[in-house]
Amino acid sequence: MSDQAQFSGFVCPLPLRDYPRIVLGHGSGGRLSAELIRHLFVPLLANDALSALNDQALLEVEGVRLAFTTDSFVVQPLFFPGGSIGSLAVHGTINDLAVSGARPLFLSAGFILEEGLAMDALGQVVTDMARAAQAAGVQVVTGDTKVVEQGKGDGLFVNTAGIGVVPADVHIAADRARPGDVILLNGTVGDHGMAIMSVREGLAFETELVSDSAPLHTLVAAMLEVTRDIHCLRDATRGGLAAVLNELAEQSNVGMVLEEAAVPVKPSVQAACEMLGLDPLYVANEGKLVAIVPREHADAVLAAMRAHPLGREAAIVGEVVEEHAGMVVARTTIGAQRVVDMPLGEILPRIC
Amino acid sequence: MSDQAQFSGFVCPLPLRDYPRIVLGHGSGGRLSAELIRHLFVPLLANDALSALNDQALLEVEGVRLAFTTDSFVVQPLFFPGGSIGSLAVHGTINDLAVSGARPLFLSAGFILEEGLAMDALGQVVTDMARAAQAAGVQVVTGDTKVVEQGKGDGLFVNTAGIGVVPADVHIAADRARPGDVILLNGTVGDHGMAIMSVREGLAFETELVSDSAPLHTLVAAMLEVTRDIHCLRDATRGGLAAVLNELAEQSNVGMVLEEAAVPVKPSVQAACEMLGLDPLYVANEGKLVAIVPREHADAVLAAMRAHPLGREAAIVGEVVEEHAGMVVARTTIGAQRVVDMPLGEILPRIC
Repeated sequence: MSDQAQFSGFVCPLPLRDYPRIVLGHGSGGRLSAELIRHLFVPLLANDALSALNDQALLEVEGVRLAFTTDSFVVQPLFFPGGSIGSLAVHGTINDLAVSGARPLFLSAGFILEEGLAMDALGQVVTDMARAAQAAGVQVVTGDTKVVEQGKGDGLFVNTAGIGVVPADVHIAADRARPGDVILLNGTVGDHGMAIMSVREGLAFETELVSDSAPLHTLVAAMLEVTRDIHCLRDATRGGLAAVLNELAEQSNVGMVLEEAAVPVKPSVQAACEMLGLDPLYVANEGKLVAIVPREHADAVLAAMRAHPLGREAAIVGEVVEEHAGMVVARTTIGAQRVVDMPLGEILPRIC
Repeated sequence: MSDQAQFSGFVCPLPLRDYPRIVLGHGSGGRLSAELIRHLFVPLLANDALSALNDQALLEVEGVRLAFTTDSFVVQPLFFPGGSIGSLAVHGTINDLAVSGARPLFLSAGFILEEGLAMDALGQVVTDMARAAQAAGVQVVTGDTKVVEQGKGDGLFVNTAGIGVVPADVHIAADRARPGDVILLNGTVGDHGMAIMSVREGLAFETELVSDSAPLHTLVAAMLEVTRDIHCLRDATRGGLAAVLNELAEQSNVGMVLEEAAVPVKPSVQAACEMLGLDPLYVANEGKLVAIVPREHADAVLAAMRAHPLGREAAIVGEVVEEHAGMVVARTTIGAQRVVDMPLGEILPRIC
């Protein structure tokens, strides 16, 4: 770290002032991330697209509705059960486009390599990107490579930005959840995070823990065939299902009730979570989305999800309510209620 | 560095096999960078937009001609005379769009922060991005932040991807230089690289060395007002003027003759280069572009450049020839000729 004395002028607003230096939690997708976005990025870069706080910007360019998004990937290890940083970077950006209803078209790839990285490792990562892109029907059309000295990076970081086209009659947004709406989920939670942790921690049953990393755009397309009137869609990555529901509850100013028993969790993931003292609701996914739809469309959308290979275990997991606006409450299996808080900071660092 | 044993399958093609591990030169913009692009990225990610080897992809989306580009920034120090990594990230991506003739519209910003970075430093970088974007008339509409552990990054890296719209009648490309064309440059070379070096090396006359970091899109627009028939445009960043001319000579399969005395160099930059044993032709710029135009338009384009604040010292610096295809030859002040080679690797690391 160097030269932090040379700048001048900027004074952090509250509540950022409580953290004079960046901590891992600022990249967590939890409350610290949200504070950074709301109190630093959004006011400084002030514009409507950014302020909408969706996972992608919706732009009008010469009459075409574009979705535009970016994601940097710093996952460790680079290769893990069910994928690598290469396939993850493609799926992650496709999913940020898909949850706007966009048809993903083009990706960019910006690499930051650490001196000493094995050339074959880079080759394998790019091979994985290429295969993931081809399988999903998108193209990586532009790129950039920077190299930093040994000890100034961590093997390989990659940023993927993406462009997609949003149909004229689709209006999915984080502030559109309404009391009475139904909350749908396309399958088991916690798979990606626990797959990464199993490799890092050397868990004995690691062979059963596989990332769910997958491109969700065809699933979204199948859901939009049923109805264009999907209110919210978001992929549940950093911070897991809990973070996504909290974000949507806050941005829509509604309450959410989660039926905990209805949330699918693989037994191996549940066991690994218990061993590490983690709640699967907070563990990252890379192939899971939350959909909030009007009650009258819920069954039909659920049926469409279950008919898709990435939605076979889809379930209705809760509902939107007027009470406790901005808050997510889980009804537990024994009938008790508990608040599912926004995570403060980092539960599992460098998961994506 | 970790887990480079877990991948399998990828075997590097020649000539990459000479480098089993990434070296700094692979990020230089010189020959090692070109080999990585040609023998790894382009074949693996195979598509026409990428294979065109321009600084941006030209895409047709629902009848609109889009330019799409990405650049990661790893410059050290983060703040330097004439700018910071924030303003540089905005200017650099604007310029990659501008040299396609595009009107830059929207940027993304993906941050990779090192745990321990001062919050105020981040705030100042984002402030600089915001000011640069506003001054240039573009918006930063989507973003992402990741945090890595102390010692796994270097303060702050940022990726900016960008989208612009290309007018229907503009067809600028790296393979369009033709014998007889004239080579134009919009001002002095080496300013950015020597400004960075002056801070790093603590050169005595550092106050005179200031980065030329600037957004070139309004200059390009003024040039296109004169004629749509501009053959090639490229900003001369990593590898300097020498790298750009070599790339264009190779991609257009033509020779280039550079009149060395015609290339503007500030006396302070010249002096700093001599002290460090560097050739200003190879030093990075962040506000300079090379234009290759048909001879009949050269004087009018030059006049338009000189009438623009970022082209006051514009000059005709050479011509395109049929001889020595793929090679750049400089005519020196004493009438001798020398080959201006593509740099192999890194001359000045982490300059952008």
